[in-house]
Amino acid sequence: MTKKGKSDKRSALSEFEIIARYFAPLATDPAALALLDDTAILPVPEGQELIATTDTIIEGVHFLSDDPPDSIGHKALAVTLSDLAAKGARPYAYLLSLALPEPSAQWLEAFTEGLGGLQARAGICLVGGDTSATPGPLTVTITALGLLPQGDAVLRRGALPGDTLMLSGTVGDAYLGLRLLREPKLAREWALSEAETGFLIDRYRRPQARTAIAPSIRHCARASIDISDGLAADTAKLCKASGVAATIEAARVPLSPAAAKVVQAAPDLFQDMLSAGDDYEILAAMEASHASAFARETVEHSIPVTAIGSVRAGAGEVELLDAAGKPLALDHFGFVHFEDD
Amino acid sequence: MTKKGKSDKRSALSEFEIIARYFAPLATDPAALALLDDTAILPVPEGQELIATTDTIIEGVHFLSDDPPDSIGHKALAVTLSDLAAKGARPYAYLLSLALPEPSAQWLEAFTEGLGGLQARAGICLVGGDTSATPGPLTVTITALGLLPQGDAVLRRGALPGDTLMLSGTVGDAYLGLRLLREPKLAREWALSEAETGFLIDRYRRPQARTAIAPSIRHCARASIDISDGLAADTAKLCKASGVAATIEAARVPLSPAAAKVVQAAPDLFQDMLSAGDDYEILAAMEASHASAFARETVEHSIPVTAIGSVRAGAGEVELLDAAGKPLALDHFGFVHFEDD
Repeated sequence: MTKKGKSDKRSALSEFEIIARYFAPLATDPAALALLDDTAILPVPEGQELIATTDTIIEGVHFLSDDPPDSIGHKALAVTLSDLAAKGARPYAYLLSLALPEPSAQWLEAFTEGLGGLQARAGICLVGGDTSATPGPLTVTITALGLLPQGDAVLRRGALPGDTLMLSGTVGDAYLGLRLLREPKLAREWALSEAETGFLIDRYRRPQARTAIAPSIRHCARASIDISDGLAADTAKLCKASGVAATIEAARVPLSPAAAKVVQAAPDLFQDMLSAGDDYEILAAMEASHASAFARETVEHSIPVTAIGSVRAGAGEVELLDAAGKPLALDHFGFVHFEDD
Repeated sequence: MTKKGKSDKRSALSEFEIIARYFAPLATDPAALALLDDTAILPVPEGQELIATTDTIIEGVHFLSDDPPDSIGHKALAVTLSDLAAKGARPYAYLLSLALPEPSAQWLEAFTEGLGGLQARAGICLVGGDTSATPGPLTVTITALGLLPQGDAVLRRGALPGDTLMLSGTVGDAYLGLRLLREPKLAREWALSEAETGFLIDRYRRPQARTAIAPSIRHCARASIDISDGLAADTAKLCKASGVAATIEAARVPLSPAAAKVVQAAPDLFQDMLSAGDDYEILAAMEASHASAFARETVEHSIPVTAIGSVRAGAGEVELLDAAGKPLALDHFGFVHFEDD
């Protein structure tokens, strides 16, 4: 009793084949029930609590149509791992929902390779999912679950006036990478080498979630957020949730060597970089006295952190100051969903 | 520092407005952090474990473009609640990912009304989500989390030869509802009243998850599955996971009065109804001696259950017998993702 016409469609992959061939190998934890059930059973150790986050990436919105499929798998998982890391959580398990315009073995192989590589490095396991055909763009939703000692989550709220704002990594690389993908000739204009161009593109396509410093965030930070919607907008979110304001000293915002080279060639881009999204770095507010311990801990994981400003009394305002201490006005304040321009 | 041109777009809703106006009112549990964070903190009571499931519904694939928005909200949640119920779990919390072609206040209001109505009845709470603009069809992913006493989940595996197969509700209504939506003139052909037509369409658009009988499933069943991909295909999945075979007596498969009327007018449709998807009913395998207790418990919740067959030794085969005991061959065996015909 097989489906009529099935043998006529040589390229068609059934959902069962897709799960068995590509996704079951990623479901290494017993909780996943080898993806043979429609649910996953997740024990939560005593004294721990669960943290949950969900993110969708859509072709043409969050990644480009010609991004390599392995980078799409990587990115879909990285963006949720970034949220877990910002809260100080340890990755535990994830569920994957895939709406596929046209499933091909080659695409699925590369996609799951990207997913599987990051999964192994992050210590997380696929435990469930859903695969559908869609007439629209490729759409990937991942719900990631993390574990934390009870009461230890670092939230957006909690920052206090006087706190230091610490930022992991560098800002603006992903924005420049996207610009380079859209307009390859910019590489010459910006005097970038092939390696520098590749670095920036990679920062757009393969963001590195800061999972390794999650314990340090838990030890040191009072409030924390990942800056996926842009440094300016996400600082404002942390401030609003905490009922404070912040001052960022733009000259202290760290840039990668490649991005610094671009700013030299095109100084106006610097302000765009402060508000552009897709940097999966973490901004953490902590007592000033914790900042150096934080920096010492994170450097062990080869993740530099930098003090870029401070928290003050206020109601969500974020002030950006230039090197001379004068306010910088941003044209765009951050990635605003639903308003393209 | 607001975004340039924002005031020019009178109809544009920002993600923040959408969350504050439409989704925050659904985030009634403290775990949701009022949707002010990008994660939810979910304590799991001692002795309980968490169960997780994810489902995506896509416009034009899982619902029709002109389905009312409140029914889309309802359906997105119902399909995941159905999975939780089949495992015997109590609904706990859900995360919503919404890819919207064009957000309008009117649409969001109706959508969240459907979502909120079912949420309140099921005792589940929105705890997180993600909202994106998409150039493609409306795509809704819900990850639902449930709670269960440790070790008590009822899985697909576990059915034993000799077990009775019990089915909640009736089969085929949603399939007929979808046929009626696509070809309204069938109502006359099938001699259906307006109320009967409305009933069948409602079964397609607003499936009722069998949350109320989850405890009875936990008390009585050895294995269980919801039949969202069709009675035949999902029985086969339960059998494969359990390493058994099953016989279904087609004449005992319960039909609603409206569906029975259709079968009278068009007897050939009966076989399609056995393999059609979208019936969010539960098939449970249990010791024969538990069947009557199960029926007594579920009737208290006004959810009838019916013995439709039995489990036997085998390797995943599902045999459907007609009233005379002769095998019925199905043209289609169930909803196969990625193979339209």
